[in-house]
Amino acid sequence: MYSTDKPYKKEVLDIIRATWSTPYVEVLEGGTYPVIHRKVNFPEIDHTDGIGTKGLYHWRMRTFHKAICDALAMNLNDLAMAQAIPYKMQCHLTLPDECGEVVVEIMRMLAHECKIRNIAITGGETSIQNTSQCMDISLTVSGFLRNDFSNRPRAGDIIVGISSNGLHSNGFTKVREVFGEDIIRPEFVRATRLYDEAVWQVASCFNIHGMVHITGGAYLKLKEVLRDVDARLFGFPTDHRYPIFREIYRKGISDEEMYKTFNCGIGFMFSLSSSSARSVAQIIPEAIIIGAVQTGSGNVLIRSQFSGALLKF
Amino acid sequence: MYSTDKPYKKEVLDIIRATWSTPYVEVLEGGTYPVIHRKVNFPEIDHTDGIGTKGLYHWRMRTFHKAICDALAMNLNDLAMAQAIPYKMQCHLTLPDECGEVVVEIMRMLAHECKIRNIAITGGETSIQNTSQCMDISLTVSGFLRNDFSNRPRAGDIIVGISSNGLHSNGFTKVREVFGEDIIRPEFVRATRLYDEAVWQVASCFNIHGMVHITGGAYLKLKEVLRDVDARLFGFPTDHRYPIFREIYRKGISDEEMYKTFNCGIGFMFSLSSSSARSVAQIIPEAIIIGAVQTGSGNVLIRSQFSGALLKF
Repeated sequence: MYSTDKPYKKEVLDIIRATWSTPYVEVLEGGTYPVIHRKVNFPEIDHTDGIGTKGLYHWRMRTFHKAICDALAMNLNDLAMAQAIPYKMQCHLTLPDECGEVVVEIMRMLAHECKIRNIAITGGETSIQNTSQCMDISLTVSGFLRNDFSNRPRAGDIIVGISSNGLHSNGFTKVREVFGEDIIRPEFVRATRLYDEAVWQVASCFNIHGMVHITGGAYLKLKEVLRDVDARLFGFPTDHRYPIFREIYRKGISDEEMYKTFNCGIGFMFSLSSSSARSVAQIIPEAIIIGAVQTGSGNVLIRSQFSGALLKF
Repeated sequence: MYSTDKPYKKEVLDIIRATWSTPYVEVLEGGTYPVIHRKVNFPEIDHTDGIGTKGLYHWRMRTFHKAICDALAMNLNDLAMAQAIPYKMQCHLTLPDECGEVVVEIMRMLAHECKIRNIAITGGETSIQNTSQCMDISLTVSGFLRNDFSNRPRAGDIIVGISSNGLHSNGFTKVREVFGEDIIRPEFVRATRLYDEAVWQVASCFNIHGMVHITGGAYLKLKEVLRDVDARLFGFPTDHRYPIFREIYRKGISDEEMYKTFNCGIGFMFSLSSSSARSVAQIIPEAIIIGAVQTGSGNVLIRSQFSGALLKF
């Protein structure tokens, strides 16, 4: 917990305390650790994720706010996909060097982002590991489930994709393989886009059959939600405004590897009835129709934006 | 969550599923992630900790079960100190190399330890970071608080310490400084002792005024629970069966640094009335009276086992 031996820990405790009163939870000082009292009682989901080896670039470039947005997006996008309302979190910060000022700066930015989202930071850990060149921000976020959401695309659905804003927080081991260890480019530290607001906007107006956050494993993630149906993705933009994916492809990465590793321009997908899909594509910024669901056996069929080849996963 | 793109993930999901039914919680398959339904409703504490740079030695020596015991101890000892009953956890595993067999092996051992303790593993993340030489097992464990425990040692109390079984999981950056990067000794991978059973045994029979798990920050942790009192620790064993501490001291680490960094042979402390303390010292294995609490201002006074010097923190 943020109150032990290190001089900055008292400051961090004061920072997180500002997040403790929300509509969902009241966190109170306990004898030893903060004590969580729920104001509502629903089933819950817990979700843990960090920023992976993208933390190497964030650490070198000191892009800490973008690192926080990445960590939040990796968790909040997944919770939104499950229609869970995030209400509390623990933060495990791992840094290559002991630097109290950086810890305080990161926790202040994280607390700000949490405060405006009604997420209480209930504690965490700061670990200094000089065995690594990479920072990590691992968050464990709990979310309430008001309704369980079955997440099953149906035959006849249309798939609407929302643009990513670049590489997001996956595939960075491959990025380093392709570009070498020493190249850093602005694209490598651009923060992952948050889709939670778009999800709630769509969910409040339409009956969503399925949703997928395109993250670790990229388009293979679709396979987790397909039952007795196939997804056909044929509408990837070929002139995407983030040319990084085409650049990586041209460096010799196969079509299959591209779609198994990178979001390739689409960060989130909805599966809806045809009429709902057309409305969603109109009202959500940067949403486009990219595919359809048909009777099948859990396959993902992709018309590659890079070569035009038809891929099957 | 343990069900995405990697071949071992389905196996891991099956492994953690075995922990999902406990007296405290029922975890059910959800549309996207496992859904947690509590059977009891108490205030709670969340606690996050990992194994730090001790993970360097565990990774090199493949001492995965000991690594799990370390991760559990770092969390369960702290929760026991707060008298919280652990009931669920998320696991964030970070490994330097992709190795599905190791992930499955670790999760199987963790699930076994959790099952016997009625802790449900509700999900987590596996992150491969080839930017690090070090594995980490970061757990976020939630615990129920049946009663809030104020954790305040009182003037007149006697302090009972329980022996550690060596270095535990702190001070490993210092260990590498002292011994160099390439030396690995059996003492470096000995698992942290779990004190949770001892705590519940003492709590069921005696009125505990204060407790401290000697972990990161070592004896400075005592300062967090002292209010208007000082702790005097004068009874450290000088012929401790783990000579590693004396060996480190002899390599030029100061008395102050030793007690700020290492457990120096005592891993957990209770502060109790004089009569209770004497009984506890008799019934708990390897418990000894090591000090007393007196009116003061939050200081920790230590008679060093190494030089005999009186230290003040």
